[in-house]
Parts: sequence; structure tokens; C-alpha cells
Amino acid sequence: MTDFFIHQGLFTEILEYIGTFAFAISGIRLAAGKDFDLFGAYVVGLVTAIGGGTIRDLCLDLTPFWMLNSSYMIWTAIALIFVILFRKHLIRLNNTFFIFDTIGLALFTVVGIEKTLDCHYPFWVAIIMGTITGAAGGIIRDIFINQIPLIFRKEIYAIACIIGGIVYYATDMIFNDNTIVQVLCALSVALTRIIAVKYQIGLPHIKGEEETE
Amino acid sequence: MTDFFIHQGLFTEILEYIGTFAFAISGIRLAAGKDFDLFGAYVVGLVTAIGGGTIRDLCLDLTPFWMLNSSYMIWTAIALIFVILFRKHLIRLNNTFFIFDTIGLALFTVVGIEKTLDCHYPFWVAIIMGTITGAAGGIIRDIFINQIPLIFRKEIYAIACIIGGIVYYATDMIFNDNTIVQVLCALSVALTRIIAVKYQIGLPHIKGEEETE
Amino acid sequence: MTDFFIHQGLFTEILEYIGTFAFAISGIRLAAGKDFDLFGAYVVGLVTAIGGGTIRDLCLDLTPFWMLNSSYMIWTAIALIFVILFRKHLIRLNNTFFIFDTIGLALFTVVGIEKTLDCHYPFWVAIIMGTITGAAGGIIRDIFINQIPLIFRKEIYAIACIIGGIVYYATDMIFNDNTIVQVLCALSVALTRIIAVKYQIGLPHIKGEEETE
Repeated sequence: MTDFFIHQGLFTEILEYIGTFAFAISGIRLAAGKDFDLFGAYVVGLVTAIGGGTIRDLCLDLTPFWMLNSSYMIWTAIALIFVILFRKHLIRLNNTFFIFDTIGLALFTVVGIEKTLDCHYPFWVAIIMGTITGAAGGIIRDIFINQIPLIFRKEIYAIACIIGGIVYYATDMIFNDNTIVQVLCALSVALTRIIAVKYQIGLPHIKGEEETE
Repeated sequence: MTDFFIHQGLFTEILEYIGTFAFAISGIRLAAGKDFDLFGAYVVGLVTAIGGGTIRDLCLDLTPFWMLNSSYMIWTAIALIFVILFRKHLIRLNNTFFIFDTIGLALFTVVGIEKTLDCHYPFWVAIIMGTITGAAGGIIRDIFINQIPLIFRKEIYAIACIIGGIVYYATDMIFNDNTIVQVLCALSVALTRIIAVKYQIGLPHIKGEEETE
Repeated sequence: MTDFFIHQGLFTEILEYIGTFAFAISGIRLAAGKDFDLFGAYVVGLVTAIGGGTIRDLCLDLTPFWMLNSSYMIWTAIALIFVILFRKHLIRLNNTFFIFDTIGLALFTVVGIEKTLDCHYPFWVAIIMGTITGAAGGIIRDIFINQIPLIFRKEIYAIACIIGGIVYYATDMIFNDNTIVQVLCALSVALTRIIAVKYQIGLPHIKGEEETE
């Protein structure tokens, strides 16, 4: 029994580091396109990976998770070295990064929901915190590189987290096993994102008022 | 007596939702002008409405207020639907929104001051927190749409909060009744803003050094 | 003995106010170049001076330091008056400001490390918090004036904080006297920055992928 949990914990940990790595890569690549130096690229990679979880932990009055485990710093450093070494081959790996990034998004969402429910908040708060965990890092990343956050204009991204949260809520009422609920939540986040990108589904845009301000 | 407080509480609550609605509208309209999708517009509306209070609560080591009451999420959603439905008529409603926005500013300032005093901070901290509650959401809004925050360059806005805070401090020494103090504070915030806009009073600008950087 | 500590405390306090003054000046001058009004310039000066320490205190679950002592508000106001009065002579004072700013950076780093160690976090967290204390205010400043943060592209700045943190860690193992450790840490931050600026040493930049995004 203990063995099982250790293995499950290890598996989740590996997935979480894959997510951190993928999120950091996305930040570092965008920083590289803006002529950042190594420190700047590292910081942008780091906030992409840990920014959402930090906001979540501050709202929940918990110690930011990365202050309790140095792995997130190290995986961001590995991501930086990776981008420097394989710069010319990264575009060819775009599909791989997309899968990694999607795994990260799905897992970060589950972690955010779990942590919030552990603090005894209602489900609607947990869904918001899951979404913040998955999507807020990318918002800070885009503010740091002085662009309008990508997720406000393109692609289904945060919406996948919200759908995942609703799936968590619904399946939590049906199944007794928390692992099943987590897996279904993560799968629904990932599938929503994959389907949205494959079929280029986006949200409708809100129209301006033809103001000339 | 209890009845009175219930009614007063209800009245404050209604005013607070009007303020949330007006703040959210201002964020959503600006997001619409930048071609945001529905999710992006909702988030910008939401941070405009709850951003200031969230920073205040984190500084005071309180749970962010919107995590304890889902009304703020719902009023932002109503604001989004409102903007979509009445897009073409919104400009004609500008004066109405200005009044709503001013009510929101006045009330958010009072709430910020009260909460800070309840935590036993001195008055100068309460005045700063009142100002943050009223004005910081608009700063985050402008950062999200990648513009220099409006309140740093135009109009008396945050200054109205500061004046309201000073009025709170002064009248608190004179009157025993907290309700009178709150009303006078809110009125002074609203009147300062209305007079400033009507007579186009602004703060002097600080001149640069003719650097060519 | 008590006398000594009082004098040492006073000395540190004076240095800290010099740092606050210098950080505020840098924010106010940049705001002036962007046509901010007096309130906007004050806020930008303030976040430059207190922004890093505020993020540190929120992460450490402490009350933000400036809520416990009004001096930081007052020194920012003095900085604002100073910039208005001596606007035309400021460029000639650039070297003086550079020294002040470097003193501030060195001292803020030491304060950040000390506070974090007092909360019983490991050294790597303390080094990060020292760096956040010294460098994060400038990042928020640049976001407020809608520019890509300077420290991501130019100069050795945050790296000086990291080197100072490593020196703190190393000397802390050698010397029993905390004052010596603090002084050596501060000196290494200041010297790193001075040498880097004098010999125009910067970090290598990370190259983009020649994408046309």
C-alpha cells in the first residue's frame, strides 16, 4: 500500500518536473526572441513555471511551493541550458513541447485544485485556483516581455483548466477513488487543449465600440 | 436596532456590487478595444474590480475577500454579458458609468480603510490601503492591456481616495457615530472626483530632463 | 555593548534610507521622462524602493516592512521634491546617484538575506530573497512605465545580489561575527556592480531562433 503511494507520488513528481521544464522552455524561448541576457531569460522561464502556483499559495496563505523544494530552480536552469544548446533544433521540437506544455497545464491544474480543497475552500474557489496555477505564469511571462498576454487573445488555454475543474467536481461526486478523479481531470484539461489546437477552436472575440481613443 | 444594521449592511452590499459592476465594465470595455476574447475580457474586468482589494488583503494577511463570496465573479459575468448586449449604446451611457465608477471608488475606499483599522494599523496605513483598494485594480487592468496606467497621467483619481482617507481621519475624531464618518468619507471621495472631472482639474506633471534615452 | 548595537542599528538605518532615497529617485526620474503627473511619479518611486521587499515579506508571510514604519513613504516624498527642485542638475549628479543606488542594492540584499534566515529558510531561499529585495522593485518600476525591465537586458545587477548571497554563505561558515559577514556581503554586492559598470561587463545574451512570429 505504502509502495503504491510512493510510486504514485514519484510519478506525479516526474510529471510535475516535465511541466516545469516545458513552462520554463516557453518563457526562455520568448525571452530569447526579445534579446534578453542569460539572467533575464532565466527569470522569465522561472516566473512562467512558478508564477501561477505562487499567486495561488499567497492567496491560500501557504508558503510558496518553490521555497520548500529547490527542484523548480534546478529544472529551470536545465531548461535554460537546453535552449542554449539546442537553439537551432527547437522549432522542429515544437510538437514535443506542445505535449510537455499540455502535460504541465493538466497537472498544474490538478495540483491547484487539490491544494485549495485541502484548505477547505468551496469548489468554485478550487476551480479558479486550478486555473491560476495553470495559466497565470504565462500572463506574468508576457507582461515581463512587454506583450499583451497571449491567453487573452488566442487559443483555448485557461478554459481547458476551467473545464478540467468542472470535470473534477462532477467525477468527485461519482467516484470514491481520488486517483481516478485526478486522472479524469488532467485528461479533460489535456484533451480540451489538444482538440482546441487541432481544430483551431477559439473563443469568440469581444468587439470594440469603434472608439477612437 | 438589528434591523437598522441589516438594512445598512444590505445598502452597503448593493453599493459594493454597483461598484464591482462599474469597475468590471471599465475593464471589459478597454479589453474589447484591444481585441481580447471573451475569457480575456472577463479576466481584465475581474482584476479591475477585485485587484486592489486582493493586494490589500494580502498585505493585511487576510484571505482575499472574493474567495469568501462568489458575488464578485457573478457580477463580473453580468458586466460581460451587459457589454456584449449593449455594445453600441455604451458610449451614450458614459455619464451613468462615471457615476457608478465614482460610487465604486468611494465605497471601495471606505471598505479598505475600515478593514485596515480593524487590523489595528495606524491611520496612515489605512489611507494607503483605502487608496490601493480603490485605485490598484485600474493599474493592473492597464498593465494587462499593455498601456501605461491611466491614473499616473490623467485625472484626479487616487488623490480622491487619499482626500477621503484624510476626511475619515478628521471626522473620526469629531463624531462618535461610525456611519456618519463612513458617509462623509465616501462623499468626499465622490465629490473630489466629480469636481475634478467637471472642472478638468489635474495634478501638475513632472517634467523630464530632456534626456534622449 | 548596548550602545554599540544602537549605533550599528542607526548606521544601518541611515544606509537603508539612503538606498530608499536613491531607488525612489531612479523611479521618479524615469516616470518624469514618460510625462507622469506628481502622483504617478510618487507611486513609481515608491514601488521601486519598496516593491522588492514587499514581495519578499509576502512570500515569508511577514507584514510588509513599510506598513510598520512610515519613513519609506516620507523618504520617497523627499525624493520627489528633490527631483522637482534640482531637475536640471540631476544628470550631473549621475555618479552620486550611482553610488547611492549601489549602497541601496547592497544593503537591501543583506536585509533580504537576514530576514529570510531569521524565518529558518535554507540559504538558497535567502539568496533568492536577497536578490528579490534588491532587484524586484526595478522590475515593477519598468512594468509601470511600460518598458521591458532593464535588468533583463543590460548590466550586472541582480547577479551582484546573487554573488553577495554566495559570499554571505561562504563567510558565514568562516566567521563567528555576524557584522563581518554582513559587511563582506554588502561589499561584494557593491564591488561586483561597480566593477561591472566600470569595465562594461555584462552577461551574454541568449539568441533567438530567427523566428518570424
